Amino acid sequence: MKKITISTILSLVVFLLQAQSIQWTEEFPGVWKGSFGKPDSYTLLSAAGSKPKSDVLSKLQETAFPLNKTEIHAEIIDGKTYLRFPLMKDEQIYGLGLNFQTVHQRGKILNLHVDHYGGKDNGRTHAPVPFYVSSEGYGILINSAQYLTFYVGTGVRKDSKNPPVAKDRNTDKTWSSRPYSDAVEVYIPAEGIEFYVFAGESSLDAIKKYNLYCGGGTLPPRWGLGFTQRVQKLYTADDVMKEAAEFEEKGYPLDFIGLEPGWQTKAYPCSFEWDKSRFPDPAGFTKKMLDKGIRLNLWTNPYVSPEASISKEIEPYTGSHTVWCGTVPDLNHPEAKRIFANQLDKDQVKIGISGYKIDEVDGYDFYLWPDMATFPSGISGIQMRQTYGVLAQKLTDGLYRKENTRTFGLVRASNAGANNLPYVIYNDYYSHQDFITALVNSGFCGVLWTPEVRGSKTGEEWLRRFQSVTFSPMAMINAWSSGTKPWSFPEVADQVKYYAELRMQLMPYFYSEFAKYHFQGTPPFRAMALEEGFRNESKTVAGSQSLEDNPYLEAVNKEVKDQYMSGEYLLVAPLFTGQSTRKVLLPQGNWYDFYTGELAGNGQEITVTPGLDRIPVYVKDGGIIPLMETRLHAPAAGEKVNMEIRHYGTKESSYNLYDDDGVSFDYEKGAYSWRKIEIKKDKKGQLQGSISNAVKGKPDNIAKVGFRFMSK
Amino acid sequence: MKKITISTILSLVVFLLQAQSIQWTEEFPGVWKGSFGKPDSYTLLSAAGSKPKSDVLSKLQETAFPLNKTEIHAEIIDGKTYLRFPLMKDEQIYGLGLNFQTVHQRGKILNLHVDHYGGKDNGRTHAPVPFYVSSEGYGILINSAQYLTFYVGTGVRKDSKNPPVAKDRNTDKTWSSRPYSDAVEVYIPAEGIEFYVFAGESSLDAIKKYNLYCGGGTLPPRWGLGFTQRVQKLYTADDVMKEAAEFEEKGYPLDFIGLEPGWQTKAYPCSFEWDKSRFPDPAGFTKKMLDKGIRLNLWTNPYVSPEASISKEIEPYTGSHTVWCGTVPDLNHPEAKRIFANQLDKDQVKIGISGYKIDEVDGYDFYLWPDMATFPSGISGIQMRQTYGVLAQKLTDGLYRKENTRTFGLVRASNAGANNLPYVIYNDYYSHQDFITALVNSGFCGVLWTPEVRGSKTGEEWLRRFQSVTFSPMAMINAWSSGTKPWSFPEVADQVKYYAELRMQLMPYFYSEFAKYHFQGTPPFRAMALEEGFRNESKTVAGSQSLEDNPYLEAVNKEVKDQYMSGEYLLVAPLFTGQSTRKVLLPQGNWYDFYTGELAGNGQEITVTPGLDRIPVYVKDGGIIPLMETRLHAPAAGEKVNMEIRHYGTKESSYNLYDDDGVSFDYEKGAYSWRKIEIKKDKKGQLQGSISNAVKGKPDNIAKVGFRFMSK
Repeated sequence: MKKITISTILSLVVFLLQAQSIQWTEEFPGVWKGSFGKPDSYTLLSAAGSKPKSDVLSKLQETAFPLNKTEIHAEIIDGKTYLRFPLMKDEQIYGLGLNFQTVHQRGKILNLHVDHYGGKDNGRTHAPVPFYVSSEGYGILINSAQYLTFYVGTGVRKDSKNPPVAKDRNTDKTWSSRPYSDAVEVYIPAEGIEFYVFAGESSLDAIKKYNLYCGGGTLPPRWGLGFTQRVQKLYTADDVMKEAAEFEEKGYPLDFIGLEPGWQTKAYPCSFEWDKSRFPDPAGFTKKMLDKGIRLNLWTNPYVSPEASISKEIEPYTGSHTVWCGTVPDLNHPEAKRIFANQLDKDQVKIGISGYKIDEVDGYDFYLWPDMATFPSGISGIQMRQTYGVLAQKLTDGLYRKENTRTFGLVRASNAGANNLPYVIYNDYYSHQDFITALVNSGFCGVLWTPEVRGSKTGEEWLRRFQSVTFSPMAMINAWSSGTKPWSFPEVADQVKYYAELRMQLMPYFYSEFAKYHFQGTPPFRAMALEEGFRNESKTVAGSQSLEDNPYLEAVNKEVKDQYMSGEYLLVAPLFTGQSTRKVLLPQGNWYDFYTGELAGNGQEITVTPGLDRIPVYVKDGGIIPLMETRLHAPAAGEKVNMEIRHYGTKESSYNLYDDDGVSFDYEKGAYSWRKIEIKKDKKGQLQGSISNAVKGKPDNIAKVGFRFMSK
Repeated sequence: MKKITISTILSLVVFLLQAQSIQWTEEFPGVWKGSFGKPDSYTLLSAAGSKPKSDVLSKLQETAFPLNKTEIHAEIIDGKTYLRFPLMKDEQIYGLGLNFQTVHQRGKILNLHVDHYGGKDNGRTHAPVPFYVSSEGYGILINSAQYLTFYVGTGVRKDSKNPPVAKDRNTDKTWSSRPYSDAVEVYIPAEGIEFYVFAGESSLDAIKKYNLYCGGGTLPPRWGLGFTQRVQKLYTADDVMKEAAEFEEKGYPLDFIGLEPGWQTKAYPCSFEWDKSRFPDPAGFTKKMLDKGIRLNLWTNPYVSPEASISKEIEPYTGSHTVWCGTVPDLNHPEAKRIFANQLDKDQVKIGISGYKIDEVDGYDFYLWPDMATFPSGISGIQMRQTYGVLAQKLTDGLYRKENTRTFGLVRASNAGANNLPYVIYNDYYSHQDFITALVNSGFCGVLWTPEVRGSKTGEEWLRRFQSVTFSPMAMINAWSSGTKPWSFPEVADQVKYYAELRMQLMPYFYSEFAKYHFQGTPPFRAMALEEGFRNESKTVAGSQSLEDNPYLEAVNKEVKDQYMSGEYLLVAPLFTGQSTRKVLLPQGNWYDFYTGELAGNGQEITVTPGLDRIPVYVKDGGIIPLMETRLHAPAAGEKVNMEIRHYGTKESSYNLYDDDGVSFDYEKGAYSWRKIEIKKDKKGQLQGSISNAVKGKPDNIAKVGFRFMSK
C-alpha cells in the first residue's frame, strides 16, 4: 500500500508540474504551439477561422527552436497569465500591430486594443496584432482576443540574470531613466494562453511562416490593384456615371468606384438598402458600370437602423448596447450572420456589387459598445471589440467565395489571422508621414494598409500623397467629403496621371508580389529592416538637456520609418509637403534609380532632390520589373496585354511572374501559372531576357513581351 | 417531505437573489454602503486606513436616498463587476480624479489609473479618485484599488428606459456622434464591489460627507500655509543657509525650504541617507535652520539603492521588479514599513526634518513595476500602483504623528481615503492653464494640488504663475532645476513680494478654511460649480464643419475651468502669459474687488483688464477676510499677531476664525477654538465689527484686531 501511495503522489506531482508548465507542440517545421493553463476557447485565430497553408508549411526545412525554452516563463498571477520571453542585448523587436510612429518596439509598453489611431503608439490601433518579430529571426504570436499588455524590454526583474547596474543620478552622467531589460513580458487577462513561436533563417522568414500559418496572405482580384476613386457621400447614380465618364474622357485609369453613405436609405446606423431616390435602379446601374469595366464598392458600417428591413429579425442576435442608436449584430452568432449576410447578398452582391468598405468597426470608445456589453453568442464585449473587424471581413468575404468571385475592400479594424482576408485598412488620421510608417509596419503583422488621399491644401501635397499611394496595396482617392478628383489641382494633373498610369503598368509586378504573399507568405509592402544588407541598428540621441522640458533627460530614438520596400525590388522613399530633399538609406549592394536606371548608391545614405514630379524609387541590382501597357482598366479574365520587362543593374537574375484569371478562386484549385523571366549574360557579356512559355491549360494574359535594360 | 423541499428551494432562491443583489447599509445619515458579490479585501479605503469622522457624521440630518435604488444595477459579467447608476437628462457629473483639462465629466470614458498626467483627461492621473459628485446633490465612491473604467453617460443600452432616437446622418443635420445616455456604467475587474452613496442638499454637501467619511480633510501645520522654496538639486548646507539669508535680507517670506536629490548619497534609486560631502552635519544644520524659523522638507522616492544601508534588510520585503535598479519596498508589508520608516525616522525626522516630497510614486509605466509584478504582502501590482502614493503618505505621516508634530509635504500620487493625509500633489506637466483646472478639480475628490512655479521664460509668466500659486494649498517655488528665486525677474520682483506677503497675511483665513476642511469636510479650493448661484449649464458649440478635420462633426464642450473658489469668500480668476484681459463669470449676488472693495458685478460675466500687477480676486457680499500682519515666517505656537479683519459689500455677516497651537495634533483632543467675528449694522446703519473673546484654556494667537470695511 505504501508503495502505491508514493507512486500516486509522484504522478500527481508530475501532473501538477505539467499543468504549471508550458506544453509544446511542433505544428510544422519551425512552427511551435505553446499552451499554458486554460486558454480561452474564443481566440483571434478561431475568430478569423483561417487554416494554415499546410501544403507549403509541411514542406519547410526543419529548424531548431529559436530560444532557450527554459527562459520562456508562464505563470498565473492574480487570475491572469504572465508570459515572459527572453531578449538578447542587441535584439530589436518589430510588429505588435499597425503602429504609425515607430518601427522599433523594444522599450515600448503596448496595451493592444482595437481602436481608431489616437496619435500615439500605445497599442490602440486598427490592427493591434499580438505578433512580434525579432531581429534574431523568430516571431511570436499570442493568440488571445483579450486586451493584452506587452512590456517589450521595459520591466527589470530582481531575478534577472542580466541585471542592469544601479547608478546615482546625482553624480553619474550615464544614468538613464530606462535601464536595460532582458525580457518581453506579456500580461494576459485570461487563466491560460495559447501562443506560437515561428523560427526562420531571418526575420522575414519568421514573418512568412506566420503569414502561411494564418492561411497565407490575401490575393486580391487583379482589378483591385488598379485605381479607385470614392465619390462624395450623397452622389446619385447619375453623378457617379458622369464622374466615370469624366475619368474616361480625361484618360485617368479607374477600376472601381466607392459609394459612400448616400447609397443607403439610412446611415449611422444603417439600413443596408439602396436609397431609390439617389439610385432608382441599382441593378441596372451596377450593370452599366460593370459594362464600362468599372466595379462598385459600397461603404457601410454594421450597425442596424431601427428602420432597416432586417431590424426586427436580427434584434435577438444583437448586443446589449447600441451604436448611434443602431443595434450591433453579434457577428459571432450564426443567426445574426445569416440575416446580415442574406441582406447584403440579395440586395447588393447578387446584382454585381464588387465589395465593401466596412467602417466604424474599430472605435473610438465613445461610439462603440463598452467593455461590459454582452452578446448572445456569449463572447465578451472585449473579445467582440478585438475581433469585430475580422468577423465583418470574414462574413463579407464569404459572400464572394460563394460566388467564386474575389472581392477587395476596405476595413477599419483587423487582427491576427485575417492575413488571407481581402481587406485593406484605412483611417481618418491623415498624417502623410505617419501613413508611410504604417505601411512600413503593416508588413510585420499580416495586414494591408492604404495611405489614402482625401483632400489637400495644395497641389504639392496632392501630388506627394498621390505618389506614395501609387506604391501601396490600394491606390485610392477617398473624396467622400472633399469631392476632389485626380485632376483637381491643374498644376499637377499631368503628374498625377503619370503615377496613375504607372500604377496600372505595375499591375503584373504587384499581382506577382501579392501571389508571393499568398503562396509564400512574403508581405508585399514591408520594412527596410527585413531587407538583407540594411543597416538596422537602433540609434538613440540625447533629448533636451533642460530639466524643465525633459525632467528625466529621456533620450530620443532615431529610426528609419519613412522608406519601405514595395515588392521584391522597389525601395520607395516618399517626400512630404514642404520637402524638396531627403535622405535615403540604401542597403548593401548596388541600387538604381527606377526612372533612369542610373546607379544611385550602395549601402550608404544618399541625399536626393528629385523635384516635385518624382517620388524617389530605387531598384535592387538585378531587379526585374514586369510592366503592362498603360490601360484605363485592369485586363478582363483571358484578355491579353503587352508587357515590357525592365531589368536594372548588371546582375543576372530571374523573376517569377504570376498569372491566373484575375477574378475567381480557381487559383486555389491550381488554375494559375508562374512564368519564369530570366536575364542572363550572353557570350559577349550582354544581358539578354527570356520568359518561359505559357503553361498549357493555365490562364495566360500576356501578348507581346519586350525587354528593357535600364542600366545599360 | 415535499413541503420541506419547496421551502428549502424557496430559501435557496431567496439566498441566490440576495447574492445577486446589492446589500445596502446606512452607515451615517446620508451615507450608504452598497455591497455586491465578493469585494476585494484590499481597497482604497483599507489602504488609506482612514476612519470616518463619526462624531460629526452621526449628528447630520437624516436624508432620503438620493436615487431610485431599483435603477442601481450590479451584475457579474465575464468575471468582472458591472455597476450602473442612473443619470437624469440635465444632470452634470464632476470629479473622478485630478483631471487637468475638463471639469464636466459627463460624456467621458475614464480608465482610472495612477500615472503621471499625459496631457489628456483619460483617467490616467496622479489621483484617479473613483468618486464623482452629481449636480443633483449626491456623490458616489467606488472603493476599489483596481483599474476601474467609468462610462459617464456614454454607453446606450438597448434596454434603456430613456433611449435616444436613431437619426439618418445622410439627411438629418441634428445627427450627433454621441447620442444621449441615461447611465454611468462602471466596469470593475473584481468579482464584487463595495461602494458608497453620499446624499446632500447640494453637491458641496455630498462632497463634505465624502471628505468626512474619509476622516475629514487634512489640517496642515500653520507654517505649511506660508511660503516655500525648493532649492537646486545639488545645493550644499552652506548654499541653503546662504539662500535663506538672502530671503531674510531681501524681505521675502520663507517658511520651509525643500532639499532636492542632492541631500542623499544616492538618488534614483535612493539611499535615504545624508550626503556628508554636501551636508556634513545634518542635525546641526537642521537646528540652525529651525532657529531661524525655517523648516526643511526632503525630496525622495521610495526605491532602494543597492548601496542604501537598509538595502539588504528590506530586500525580502520588496517587489518582483525594480525601479531604476532599486528595489521597491512593499509598503503594505509590516516589515518593509518598519525598516523604511525606521531609516527615515532616525536619520531625518528625529533631527527635526519637517517633511518629505515623495516623488515617482505615480508613473510613468516605463519607470514603475509592470502590472504583473508581485509583492510579498500578496496584493497585486495593480493594487500597489493604485495605492503606492497613499501608502507612502501614510507611512511618513505616521512618523510625525508619533512625534505629535504635524507635517505638510508633497506627493505625486494619491487616491480616495487619503483626504486627511497632509500632502499636496504636484507634477512635471507645467501648463499654467491646466494647473488651474486641476485646482478646480482637486476639490471634487478630496486631494490638494499646487500649481507650483518652477522657471519662466519671462517676468510676465513668472508673475502670473506666482500670483496663482498664492491662492493655492501650497505657495511654492520649485527651483530644483532652474534655481530661480522669487526676485530672479527684477522687473516683477516687487509684485512677487507683494503676493508673497499677501500669502502670509492670508494665513488666518486659509488656516480657518483648512480647519473647515478638517472638521466639516469643506474643500478649501474648489470649483465654481459648487458655489450657490453659479450658472452651471454645460454648453456645447459646433466644432469644425470640415469632414476632413472633424469626420464626425464632434461638438466642443465649453465650460468654466479657469476660475475657482479659494475658501469661503474668494473667487480667483488667474490670467495667463500673453493675456491682458479675461472674462470672469460671477455667481448671483454682489461680488466685490478684493483689492479695492468696489462692486464688480452680480450673476454676470464681466471682462476685466487688471494689469500685470494684479490677479483678479473677488469677494462675496458680506465676505469677511481675516488678515494677519505681514511676516517673514508663520507665528510660532503661542506667538501673538495683530489682525486686520476686512469686510466686503454691504451685508451683515459672520465668520468663524479657527485657532490652535499650529503645530501639534492636540487639536484632535480638543485643544482648539473657533472665535466668532460678527459684522452688524448699528442703529445708524453703519457696519460694526466684533470678535468673540478668546476661549479660556484654548490656544490664542491674536494680539490686536482692527476692522476694515472695504466697500464703504
